[in-house]
Amino acid sequence: MSFFPNVKQVQYEGVNSKNKYAFRHYNPDEIILGKTMKAHLRFAVAYWHTMTQDGSDPFGDAINIRDWQADSPMEVAKKRVDAFFEILEKLDVDYFCFHDVDIAPQGDSLEEFFQNVDTITDLIKEKMDQTGKKLLWNTANMFSHPHFTNGAGSTNNAEVYAIAAAQVKKGIDISKKLNGANYVFWGGREGYESLLNTDMKFEQENIARLFKMSVAYAEKIGYKPQFLIEPKPKEPSKHQYDFDAATTMAFIQKYHLENDFKLNLEANHATLAGHTFEHELNVARVYEALGSIDANQGDLLLGWDTDEFPTNIYDTTLTMYELLENGGIAPGGINFDAKVRRSSFEMEDLLLAHIAGMDTYARGLKAAARLKSDGFFNQLKAERYQSFKSDLGKSILADKESLDSLAEYAMKHDTVNLESGHLEYVKSLLNDYLV
Amino acid sequence: MSFFPNVKQVQYEGVNSKNKYAFRHYNPDEIILGKTMKAHLRFAVAYWHTMTQDGSDPFGDAINIRDWQADSPMEVAKKRVDAFFEILEKLDVDYFCFHDVDIAPQGDSLEEFFQNVDTITDLIKEKMDQTGKKLLWNTANMFSHPHFTNGAGSTNNAEVYAIAAAQVKKGIDISKKLNGANYVFWGGREGYESLLNTDMKFEQENIARLFKMSVAYAEKIGYKPQFLIEPKPKEPSKHQYDFDAATTMAFIQKYHLENDFKLNLEANHATLAGHTFEHELNVARVYEALGSIDANQGDLLLGWDTDEFPTNIYDTTLTMYELLENGGIAPGGINFDAKVRRSSFEMEDLLLAHIAGMDTYARGLKAAARLKSDGFFNQLKAERYQSFKSDLGKSILADKESLDSLAEYAMKHDTVNLESGHLEYVKSLLNDYLV
Amino acid sequence: MSFFPNVKQVQYEGVNSKNKYAFRHYNPDEIILGKTMKAHLRFAVAYWHTMTQDGSDPFGDAINIRDWQADSPMEVAKKRVDAFFEILEKLDVDYFCFHDVDIAPQGDSLEEFFQNVDTITDLIKEKMDQTGKKLLWNTANMFSHPHFTNGAGSTNNAEVYAIAAAQVKKGIDISKKLNGANYVFWGGREGYESLLNTDMKFEQENIARLFKMSVAYAEKIGYKPQFLIEPKPKEPSKHQYDFDAATTMAFIQKYHLENDFKLNLEANHATLAGHTFEHELNVARVYEALGSIDANQGDLLLGWDTDEFPTNIYDTTLTMYELLENGGIAPGGINFDAKVRRSSFEMEDLLLAHIAGMDTYARGLKAAARLKSDGFFNQLKAERYQSFKSDLGKSILADKESLDSLAEYAMKHDTVNLESGHLEYVKSLLNDYLV
Amino acid sequence: MSFFPNVKQVQYEGVNSKNKYAFRHYNPDEIILGKTMKAHLRFAVAYWHTMTQDGSDPFGDAINIRDWQADSPMEVAKKRVDAFFEILEKLDVDYFCFHDVDIAPQGDSLEEFFQNVDTITDLIKEKMDQTGKKLLWNTANMFSHPHFTNGAGSTNNAEVYAIAAAQVKKGIDISKKLNGANYVFWGGREGYESLLNTDMKFEQENIARLFKMSVAYAEKIGYKPQFLIEPKPKEPSKHQYDFDAATTMAFIQKYHLENDFKLNLEANHATLAGHTFEHELNVARVYEALGSIDANQGDLLLGWDTDEFPTNIYDTTLTMYELLENGGIAPGGINFDAKVRRSSFEMEDLLLAHIAGMDTYARGLKAAARLKSDGFFNQLKAERYQSFKSDLGKSILADKESLDSLAEYAMKHDTVNLESGHLEYVKSLLNDYLV
Repeated sequence: MSFFPNVKQVQYEGVNSKNKYAFRHYNPDEIILGKTMKAHLRFAVAYWHTMTQDGSDPFGDAINIRDWQADSPMEVAKKRVDAFFEILEKLDVDYFCFHDVDIAPQGDSLEEFFQNVDTITDLIKEKMDQTGKKLLWNTANMFSHPHFTNGAGSTNNAEVYAIAAAQVKKGIDISKKLNGANYVFWGGREGYESLLNTDMKFEQENIARLFKMSVAYAEKIGYKPQFLIEPKPKEPSKHQYDFDAATTMAFIQKYHLENDFKLNLEANHATLAGHTFEHELNVARVYEALGSIDANQGDLLLGWDTDEFPTNIYDTTLTMYELLENGGIAPGGINFDAKVRRSSFEMEDLLLAHIAGMDTYARGLKAAARLKSDGFFNQLKAERYQSFKSDLGKSILADKESLDSLAEYAMKHDTVNLESGHLEYVKSLLNDYLV
Repeated sequence: MSFFPNVKQVQYEGVNSKNKYAFRHYNPDEIILGKTMKAHLRFAVAYWHTMTQDGSDPFGDAINIRDWQADSPMEVAKKRVDAFFEILEKLDVDYFCFHDVDIAPQGDSLEEFFQNVDTITDLIKEKMDQTGKKLLWNTANMFSHPHFTNGAGSTNNAEVYAIAAAQVKKGIDISKKLNGANYVFWGGREGYESLLNTDMKFEQENIARLFKMSVAYAEKIGYKPQFLIEPKPKEPSKHQYDFDAATTMAFIQKYHLENDFKLNLEANHATLAGHTFEHELNVARVYEALGSIDANQGDLLLGWDTDEFPTNIYDTTLTMYELLENGGIAPGGINFDAKVRRSSFEMEDLLLAHIAGMDTYARGLKAAARLKSDGFFNQLKAERYQSFKSDLGKSILADKESLDSLAEYAMKHDTVNLESGHLEYVKSLLNDYLV
Repeated sequence: MSFFPNVKQVQYEGVNSKNKYAFRHYNPDEIILGKTMKAHLRFAVAYWHTMTQDGSDPFGDAINIRDWQADSPMEVAKKRVDAFFEILEKLDVDYFCFHDVDIAPQGDSLEEFFQNVDTITDLIKEKMDQTGKKLLWNTANMFSHPHFTNGAGSTNNAEVYAIAAAQVKKGIDISKKLNGANYVFWGGREGYESLLNTDMKFEQENIARLFKMSVAYAEKIGYKPQFLIEPKPKEPSKHQYDFDAATTMAFIQKYHLENDFKLNLEANHATLAGHTFEHELNVARVYEALGSIDANQGDLLLGWDTDEFPTNIYDTTLTMYELLENGGIAPGGINFDAKVRRSSFEMEDLLLAHIAGMDTYARGLKAAARLKSDGFFNQLKAERYQSFKSDLGKSILADKESLDSLAEYAMKHDTVNLESGHLEYVKSLLNDYLV
Repeated sequence: MSFFPNVKQVQYEGVNSKNKYAFRHYNPDEIILGKTMKAHLRFAVAYWHTMTQDGSDPFGDAINIRDWQADSPMEVAKKRVDAFFEILEKLDVDYFCFHDVDIAPQGDSLEEFFQNVDTITDLIKEKMDQTGKKLLWNTANMFSHPHFTNGAGSTNNAEVYAIAAAQVKKGIDISKKLNGANYVFWGGREGYESLLNTDMKFEQENIARLFKMSVAYAEKIGYKPQFLIEPKPKEPSKHQYDFDAATTMAFIQKYHLENDFKLNLEANHATLAGHTFEHELNVARVYEALGSIDANQGDLLLGWDTDEFPTNIYDTTLTMYELLENGGIAPGGINFDAKVRRSSFEMEDLLLAHIAGMDTYARGLKAAARLKSDGFFNQLKAERYQSFKSDLGKSILADKESLDSLAEYAMKHDTVNLESGHLEYVKSLLNDYLV
């Protein structure tokens, strides 16, 4: 049975294609800077937005038409697995990501939930073996259930903490079972609704404790995926502890988690925190902690997470440039943590939206590769920082100077020859690369 | 000669006083939680807003009436010293803060600038000896001069770096000369105008290098004030590296500066970064790095630094509560980094605005002390986290649990008894403390 | 049967009361400026937040404990009526507000929906007769159902437009049946998700058309409540046409609706639009269009509608001052369009939160009344604008001047004696009124 | 004498040109949709950013290198005229805009100021006659001088009001003298610093009064340029009355100024108000009030007016599409109200930045023309609103329906066949037009 009977596997047909189920920019086998586009763009489809999102919002009812309805939650869950792998195949995407609650109904007890998870992951494994699709990362949803209302690792309730631990354990077990490359922590409720009743230090210590237990457990079972923390500044919490990349690095350093944890960065979370996505990627690179990315885009005039499919070429170009500079994103990937607009409620929008996102990333990759080949940014920076190639500059960088020696120099050289950066000209030139 | 001939030293006259030059809430000698209000509220006046700010803005010319005009920049600088100490005395404020460029004209060379600084700091020292006033902190302005357009520690130009080093050296010398308690770094241009032409890692390493040289120099001359970094997310830069408290702690940890650096936090900078001030103070406390505060307030509907005098009692109460929990702010203080509104351009507004700020902080202290005496927040939190006093909770906190043991527990206890936090009721009760 | 068997009608017990089910500031019969507090504060309870809100959010499941569960939607709806009127009585609140979908299940057809509405409004009417409670306003929910995904009056689909018209007709019928004082239009989807596919002019004309039909229908049936439009800038739409008070007044004037429409203003919507609530109230007063208010508060550091119960005394004081200046808010009222925090999920929080809101408004009323009695703002403004009492000023205000005559005057009087507004001092004085 | 001796008039050389003083996209004589690019893109250079801006910001000193320094303010002013017309010629731009204070020193009295203005406008007129350059609009700066601290038309001081009137009179006289096409009012201080001390209604009435006097005066002297109001939500004021296009239209309608006033819309002001620029343009078109535009761009992550040169092709495409739909912008134009970044402080940046902006607008024009030729948006909307071509739809649009008739229809047709808008697909297609 097919959920998209009229759609063949989507293929590259070039920019003039009138076929809406074709890639017009993403050519998987095209070689860019020595690697295929597919190898650069380790795309993943997100189970939650694709399979379980119903189109509701705080002011609107469910609207999405989804053809996997069935009589029981488990039947729905099974149909979703079929549909999901069909989508992966139709889109020619190799990776996928999920939360535990996305794939299996929670039932009436933790035991039942985990049994459901086992059943569904058996199915998923079977599909993986058949198709060669791979698990980029999985995670435990520790924010939707009422008992997580005050957090999971940061909860005020020790029993809730135990439940969180159980879900993480199960998550790592699934990762091992499905050979997941990464395991993600996104702390939607790891923060506070009000600081008035919150002991921030206590809560953060408990989160760190949970992370350390997770590392220990992975080591114990002999399967340690790359652990990733995904920052977000707020929503649903008024304030989330992993506000942005730098804040998360402060936490990681404080609790000495550098060796086991990297970052999973999301474009829309970056802008909610007041940063560009390329800024967050760059910060992660400074800390050698860029793990994986959630590819989407927000609306800078809106104050919530809109999780739109990425369609802005400026953004994907600068993102892909950072990924190229990082030497690629593997073992991480480019996960479409994006949902169709509420008005795009038809089944086919799931395909169309991913095609749009993949094509936009392909454009970005091509532009970024040209920028890199031409040394556009490197040359710009080389000129801009050339003063540090002088004797004085080299001496500073070699840690041979002191306030005394520099002050002595400065007293004799206090008239500096400044040069304009011509930023407007640079931005105009950049436009030529995008198109 | 007096600049405020009609104003005597401002004194506490109680809330019914009709004298506008009186404190109505700040009673310096009143004992609160075992210390005088004056000892709790280590107020400082900022030289820049008080003495050099002219009321101009990007769309408006200078407007402030200031009676210290004179024929030459140095004559003005000297008159300002007289006026400043008169203000400190009239306000009964013990501490003050300044940038190097606030107190002395820069002249035509670094040499001339430093000579001017020497001359004026001689005067200041004399005044300090006469009056007992103390230097809370000084700093070097490394953002206004054209050569700092691309930063100081983060500059792209090695010669500019040397000038920055010279100013920091001079700043530490001044700190020693005037027995300053702290030395502040605020990096107004330590960030970027565009990430396109910026090597963030290179620049941050150079900043860290400058900080290490500063510590080394202070140790060499045998006078090490508490070094403080002041976070701000943006303005004038599009992005400043010391975005907020957590970001700055990530930097401090990365470069192993914990032993020598703490934070100087500003209310308006907190809100520009998307945080409440109490959040930033709390973060600093989590990292044991709360050094000093810049007392002002912003306008949350405006996207720039308005640096208003603090008049919101909610804010000062929660601020003072954090300071009480910190065991006080010494050797830091409460510096009024605040400027009179453009329409408050008369000389007397300098006094009236500080009185407003001091009274509002005094109200905040009183409310915070009541909250502490009553155990208002402590009791709330004790109840909220009581589950961690259980056997399970204690075992978690004692690091005796693992994912395995917790999962085992959770499988048997997956129905948690949740309790409402009654946050609306809590906020209503809190109102009674404010007034 | 009672839903709050342990709670008697909430009464005023003064600020020292330790009874959490007591008003500590709201004394209904206390006379303020010649009227009872109850007459000033025409409080209303909102059916949606109180009766149907389940505590879910985009990242969290339903959590609220509500004791009106039953076997069928209509049984639930009937129990809710009982519970709602018990809440009104326990809180001693005279008014209430609802959307059509709040009170009755939508069933499988419009016909069934309207029958359900008839049944439930019969019950409500009975309760009203028994208790004397009154309908402040009702409205039609034209944003939640999937067919309203592209709007109601602004829909791209003529059949949806007809459904919207049917709901409005029913809404006006209900208003007549229940003797409603006002009828509200809030256009949650009257806006756009993307301007790319939107004909803004066409859509706004259709909205105006619907409004005119509504007026005509009300006139036809001989019952015309005060029509109100409620502005909101965004959410759920990316952009809502009734962005704020001024934008709505532009629309009202363009389509000549001034005689029949006023504004229902909400505090949280004001701040989402970048305004203070008092600004929006003042704008409405300038246009003589202040109809009613939705009392809540937002979080200025969050970009979505948090609909918190109002607990900030600054806000309620300035709000009540505007209402006093308006000569009161009747026939409008003060509707608590506010929801309990997700962590306040217990039944009693419904009472506690309203008590908090009512007490905060009572504080605001008292402070505003003192400000008015003392002429605090009036005196301030009289002094500030006194120059318009001069010959020149009077002549300008009498429209006797021209550019010529004023230019002639100015050439001779171009040195103006400016006076400081001492805003910091003013704000400090204002604090004394709040507490 | 030349200020740019090494630069010839900038010419179109195509995208592969390596000459930085060439247009690579703007080909003035190329025919697009039946008109030359030059006729579509009625570019203007702004005197203030180009000639008087010094590169200072609230945290930084003047930095711009400008070769028109001289011994006296009037000598500088005269040199600026030469330099300005050289820039217009080098850039091949036909229009320009200025404030009174940009072109002439204010001197010590209004009389002296106006004499200076006369002298300089004589020079400008001479240059205009020689070169054929035209005045797009002029305006009076009524916000920088200290006496305007509380506004001009909205001032609290009648004498200040007279000075404002004198400047407006002079402005209209200049417009006549130089044959200006438009006259602009931007009310930088027509708003408030605090609502506490402001009588908003009084102030707005006075602004309207000033506008009416202006119309009367223009009629009297027989030269009435198109009057334009330029909205901005804030900065320098905390709140400006002309918040955005819709707010300004509310004001215009209230005071019956529709016949004489249109809008001058600025991209950066739109985003500060929470809107896209295309939204503001569209609103103006709904009100048939699109007069002229200020071409720049802001940074959506910054909360102040950055006035950057436009380099984003998405923005200029959607802007030019609105202008095409408007039937062009004449007698308005596209004024570069944009300033070089502080780090672009060299003389040549003035040319490079304008070239960047002109090229980006040229790209936008080409993309918009293709979108229009292909009927891209028209077809999208025609399909989306096709239901209003049905009998029901036509009847609604013909005002033949009532709530009764529509309700009757809806009762029989309450199951609507909805269609997805495929917005993600639309956005992906749009990308092809941009490049």
